[in-house]
Amino acid sequence: MTDDVHVSVAELHLASELAGGDTRAASADIAEYALWLGDDALILSQQLGAWISRAPELEEDVALGNIALDLLGHARSLLRYAGSWDGRTEDDLAYFRDEPEFRCAWIVQQPNGDFAQTIARQLVASTYMYELYSALRGSTDETFAAIAAKSLKEVDYHRDHAVQWVLRLAGGTVLSREKMIRALADVWPYVDELFRDEPLIDRLDGVAARPSTLHPGFDAVIDTVFAEAELVRPDAKASRAGGRHGSHATPFGHLLAEMQVLARRHPGATW
Amino acid sequence: MTDDVHVSVAELHLASELAGGDTRAASADIAEYALWLGDDALILSQQLGAWISRAPELEEDVALGNIALDLLGHARSLLRYAGSWDGRTEDDLAYFRDEPEFRCAWIVQQPNGDFAQTIARQLVASTYMYELYSALRGSTDETFAAIAAKSLKEVDYHRDHAVQWVLRLAGGTVLSREKMIRALADVWPYVDELFRDEPLIDRLDGVAARPSTLHPGFDAVIDTVFAEAELVRPDAKASRAGGRHGSHATPFGHLLAEMQVLARRHPGATW
Repeated sequence: MTDDVHVSVAELHLASELAGGDTRAASADIAEYALWLGDDALILSQQLGAWISRAPELEEDVALGNIALDLLGHARSLLRYAGSWDGRTEDDLAYFRDEPEFRCAWIVQQPNGDFAQTIARQLVASTYMYELYSALRGSTDETFAAIAAKSLKEVDYHRDHAVQWVLRLAGGTVLSREKMIRALADVWPYVDELFRDEPLIDRLDGVAARPSTLHPGFDAVIDTVFAEAELVRPDAKASRAGGRHGSHATPFGHLLAEMQVLARRHPGATW
Repeated sequence: MTDDVHVSVAELHLASELAGGDTRAASADIAEYALWLGDDALILSQQLGAWISRAPELEEDVALGNIALDLLGHARSLLRYAGSWDGRTEDDLAYFRDEPEFRCAWIVQQPNGDFAQTIARQLVASTYMYELYSALRGSTDETFAAIAAKSLKEVDYHRDHAVQWVLRLAGGTVLSREKMIRALADVWPYVDELFRDEPLIDRLDGVAARPSTLHPGFDAVIDTVFAEAELVRPDAKASRAGGRHGSHATPFGHLLAEMQVLARRHPGATW
């Protein structure tokens, strides 16, 4: 079988369908906004990756693993665009920023917990991302519009996956319903942050999707799901989350350390 | 966007392209052989999944994540076939067997270690699997032949991925070359086990791929890669590995515990 082996380094073709072509360089504000979106996708991807071979069903391992890889693809496109502002690579941004430089919302930093907690987090994150990318397809910034159009189809599946599990767990046994209700209550304080109009948004009129305008679409989907599942929307007080300003909670430091340890130990990636 | 949400449980469509159609029920010997192959793929998949968002490059996260999911697909097909013998499901076999019931070879149980160690393990495992599935396409057992044909294309990519990284690390810096050499030396004692003709193989003439017959193909590929990378084949004493008989080393217990904890805590998967 020797002749099947392609040994030329020039033929190095690591899976990289996502490594798209050139993009214009971003401005400082655009780069900041790209970090908001890219960091959300990156951190959620890392969290979901931990489920591979650990979910309660092998079929579910495959589903969560695929969702993790989709999100990693979105993160790479967004971080590459963010880095075009000051010449950093996607790897510089993922592995060599410190905690206060990350811009992810607190929802994606919530722990995997049990399966219901992961699903509750997925319901909120994917419903938000669906509204976000729907709106962002109309951005005057071509790069954002293209990334949004590409990501939307995948996020549509992620949302459907989460919705089906919420229905299944809420409509399952007494125990599964109880766990689903508790999990939704746990993540609901982190919903508010996603829809706050920060000053950055005012400076990116027409470019960014205004978070507050995404809220009605999010609510409509959530209301439909909760009605079908006979769930009451949690009555949660908004958390003091400040992810868009680099203010994070303690568990995020651990997540970040796990993600960055290898790259930092061996800067330059190939030693 | 409410009308985009499909809320019928009947439409539950978790990603499951691999959940193929009916297969004939396996005999006890065939089931045992399916466990050899399925457990190798399952455990290697679990190990690689841990790299998502933790590899030294985001591009590499995607590559290793995809390889993990491919292997999980192979594992599911093989475990489903193994379970057809005594009515167990793929989930029963993955999550509710104890350590001595696992049939994976020791190579896949070796720790991720640093990136070079993961790549050395991938080189051995994927080169072996390529020879295995090549031969198994000609099995008189239709199910094995079909699984092998489907898996071979993916394993071809896995092998190419590993080969390219061995060349890149061996031909990189002094440090990367040193790490690659050490990593290969670490895994080489576990090569021998893969090519041992156990008594089971005699009972499955024409059905199983005879391990010893796969060795020359493996050697030819490895020799080509090592020549190109200017590496010397490690002079390793075969380990006392006995994975095919359920004899495993200490770290495997930890791996298994991580994989099984959630399913065992909540038998029945949906509580």
